[in-house]
Amino acid sequence: MVITLGELAEQLGTTLRGGDPACRITAVATLQHAGSGDLSFLANKGYRKYLSGTRASAVILGAEHADECPVAALVSANPYASYARAAALIAPRAPERQGVHPTATLEAGCQVDETAWVGPHCIIESGAVIHAGVQLAGGCFIGAGSRIGAHSRLSPNVVICHEVSIGERVNIHPGAVIGSEGFGLANEGGKWLNVPQLGSVSVGNDVEIGANTTVDRGALEDTVLEDGVRLDNQIQVAHNVHIGAHTAIAGCVGISGSARIGRHCMIGGGAGIVGHLEIADNVIITGMTMVTKSITRPGVYSSGVPAQDNDSWNRNYARFRQLDRLARKVQDMERELAARDGKQQGRD
Amino acid sequence: MVITLGELAEQLGTTLRGGDPACRITAVATLQHAGSGDLSFLANKGYRKYLSGTRASAVILGAEHADECPVAALVSANPYASYARAAALIAPRAPERQGVHPTATLEAGCQVDETAWVGPHCIIESGAVIHAGVQLAGGCFIGAGSRIGAHSRLSPNVVICHEVSIGERVNIHPGAVIGSEGFGLANEGGKWLNVPQLGSVSVGNDVEIGANTTVDRGALEDTVLEDGVRLDNQIQVAHNVHIGAHTAIAGCVGISGSARIGRHCMIGGGAGIVGHLEIADNVIITGMTMVTKSITRPGVYSSGVPAQDNDSWNRNYARFRQLDRLARKVQDMERELAARDGKQQGRD
Amino acid sequence: MVITLGELAEQLGTTLRGGDPACRITAVATLQHAGSGDLSFLANKGYRKYLSGTRASAVILGAEHADECPVAALVSANPYASYARAAALIAPRAPERQGVHPTATLEAGCQVDETAWVGPHCIIESGAVIHAGVQLAGGCFIGAGSRIGAHSRLSPNVVICHEVSIGERVNIHPGAVIGSEGFGLANEGGKWLNVPQLGSVSVGNDVEIGANTTVDRGALEDTVLEDGVRLDNQIQVAHNVHIGAHTAIAGCVGISGSARIGRHCMIGGGAGIVGHLEIADNVIITGMTMVTKSITRPGVYSSGVPAQDNDSWNRNYARFRQLDRLARKVQDMERELAARDGKQQGRD
Repeated sequence: MVITLGELAEQLGTTLRGGDPACRITAVATLQHAGSGDLSFLANKGYRKYLSGTRASAVILGAEHADECPVAALVSANPYASYARAAALIAPRAPERQGVHPTATLEAGCQVDETAWVGPHCIIESGAVIHAGVQLAGGCFIGAGSRIGAHSRLSPNVVICHEVSIGERVNIHPGAVIGSEGFGLANEGGKWLNVPQLGSVSVGNDVEIGANTTVDRGALEDTVLEDGVRLDNQIQVAHNVHIGAHTAIAGCVGISGSARIGRHCMIGGGAGIVGHLEIADNVIITGMTMVTKSITRPGVYSSGVPAQDNDSWNRNYARFRQLDRLARKVQDMERELAARDGKQQGRD
Repeated sequence: MVITLGELAEQLGTTLRGGDPACRITAVATLQHAGSGDLSFLANKGYRKYLSGTRASAVILGAEHADECPVAALVSANPYASYARAAALIAPRAPERQGVHPTATLEAGCQVDETAWVGPHCIIESGAVIHAGVQLAGGCFIGAGSRIGAHSRLSPNVVICHEVSIGERVNIHPGAVIGSEGFGLANEGGKWLNVPQLGSVSVGNDVEIGANTTVDRGALEDTVLEDGVRLDNQIQVAHNVHIGAHTAIAGCVGISGSARIGRHCMIGGGAGIVGHLEIADNVIITGMTMVTKSITRPGVYSSGVPAQDNDSWNRNYARFRQLDRLARKVQDMERELAARDGKQQGRD
Repeated sequence: MVITLGELAEQLGTTLRGGDPACRITAVATLQHAGSGDLSFLANKGYRKYLSGTRASAVILGAEHADECPVAALVSANPYASYARAAALIAPRAPERQGVHPTATLEAGCQVDETAWVGPHCIIESGAVIHAGVQLAGGCFIGAGSRIGAHSRLSPNVVICHEVSIGERVNIHPGAVIGSEGFGLANEGGKWLNVPQLGSVSVGNDVEIGANTTVDRGALEDTVLEDGVRLDNQIQVAHNVHIGAHTAIAGCVGISGSARIGRHCMIGGGAGIVGHLEIADNVIITGMTMVTKSITRPGVYSSGVPAQDNDSWNRNYARFRQLDRLARKVQDMERELAARDGKQQGRD
């Protein structure tokens, strides 16, 4: 879409400095690669070095950088959010489709709103309800009795198992699986019995679920993703997990059964959360950290181990394997020194 | 299904205490949320606090808690297993279907038992054999020459590559891939040559394979999952891995090529197993542990690093980076103290 | 395929020692299990113990083992690569098919070369171009405007999103997703705004992408996999990552946004790479290592923590939690000893 700088400033609630409000913006680009007609942005200080040389027609940035901007500036208190809004205006998503592709399979007793789109080779089982404006790309499976809320978008090959509830404006990326059976096992004489997984999954509004991410159904009650949750790719959410509103979780995280994660948390890539614990609101877990106990206070928590060159690593880790012994040795020496101190003081 | 407490006690082999054998059970529920007609259970001591207030019609529990039970008790030596059996009776799985959906694609030369179900948009290649009672949900792919044993159930969008053998009563969850080519690479002058992966995958009976889990085919011989193996979601099993009977593996575990894992093992979420090693029977690997050497004795093994608050973590990790130096310093001090000891003794 | 030892030696550029050039080879097998007509190989010293007892008709091996070989030897400077070439000759891949299966859905405006094969239930959107000899197995999705280069092979249920470019002779394994939206989020008053992901993915020639691996599209520019890259299963490649030519990455690795990885690198399973950093060419990252800073020199880097028995681990980790305190204590003792030294010297 083409939009003028003046319109853009107004729609974003930003201040235009040093540019022609009639200038037409046709695309977005990075500071380094932008040209005439492009809008760029500065949100990460690492890219400030590219500001002075940019050939963008305008740049969204914070007030602190406005003076350095060689072209028109859209000054924002939150440049990255303003950029997100601008990019959505300038490069809108693919238009919505309506109807049911002739190759889709709709079982008797499912309901599809007439404004929804059901793509090729989709399967919608009995009792499923597809609300207004939903976009199902090709090869999606919607199990019996599940509900897809209005204007949600499912990418190709998404699987929604039976009796799952998906809210409105939810985006689910390719290959994600919602509502698979949880890993519930009872051991009987060395063999495993499956514990029936009779709960479901409840996904709120405005949730994002990444490619090939899996969310298991609850054992008796539901696995819950509250409104605004953001899950990246390849995340595993086990049965009965509860994730609070507006929590964002990066790729490859594993969350064990019945963990309860607060609101507005951020969890770094590759982290692991043990089951049956609680994490408070506003907690940040850094990448590859393992959370083994409940976290009751906001803050940043870590156990991801940064790389060293292999020789140093091996030397240090060899010492770690004996760390308890080393610590005892230090205690012994301390005691020994204190004892000598006594002797010495007696002698002095 | 509706069942009386008396029938339930008999079928489970449990003792009914303090209840009316004619009482009708219609559902299962947690201690906290159960009501009239519901069966509940106490298997994890963390939930004992909910026992006294439960409104369930009956509770499955161990003899040690029977006296505290405010309602009818079904006393079991293994309450969780008894609950698993009870839930399977009361809330049976979806009924089996038979036949071939008209949208499925069956290549010439495949065999489908007349009691099996082939769902919409499935593809069954030449030479594949689908045994009695098999349930293939929509969008499954069964490659040339593969065999699916009687009463196995494949969820939507499962891919079974060519020449794979799946046993009886196996459950495979959505998006799982069995028999993909292993990651076999030979380096020649800095470029990678693919080593043809000519083995296959052999899956025993009563195996469970989680959503989006991948099991690669062997390079020359087969990758093997023995009877009763339980794999959670998002697990990667590389070529020529051998997993012993009744071993259970939690989500996000990665197992490298030619690792041989014993029977009755339990492997925690996010663990990693290096290739070409052996793990004995009855080994427990805790979450996020990396196994780099063979384990020859039963027991519990760990290297998952629990989280600390970020400041403590950074301080401790900074010391870890110098741990070898610290250990040398302690040794020097020890020597120094011993030397002084000598001098001191000479002087005393 | 049947081939004589003489032909094989010639085609592989290896030297035949001690065998009949007319001997017919019909299959490949391990040293332990090979029989008459089988070709085997010795590339890993761990298997040397099987050489003396092998019943293979011939063995590919290095000159240093030729004298020990009890059967015909094909002597190679790179036995594993020679084996890879031999196996590809003897056990060729499934033959290529041509045409479009009648259940496939081709949108108006896509182009499919007449020598390509489009399998059952595939979906090819408008503007997509499928080049000569491409093999699309069942259930693949090729999004609008994407390009699949000549002789690439996509396994079942692969998803290629819109405007993605895939090179020639690329193999993509089942369930892989290329071009899903990156995880770009801007926070505004505690809620997340999606940052439109307007870049794409560019995959070079001769690339391998494993089962259920995900590669996100770039935010503004492209995510890039250069020629010859090898990705194993269940890998997550975030937006704007750049992976240099001939780099091989093992299963379950996660690579965060805008990381730039060099050429000829090897990354072990389960490793994690933090975003916005650079890794030089020829770097080796061992399994389960976390890379948090740029690596500017070739070499081996590690932080994967090997398992210990659980008791030792707990004792050592308890000390690690106090490691900073321990290090301070050692410093204090050192100072104390130095001070006494001073006193002692004064006294002596």
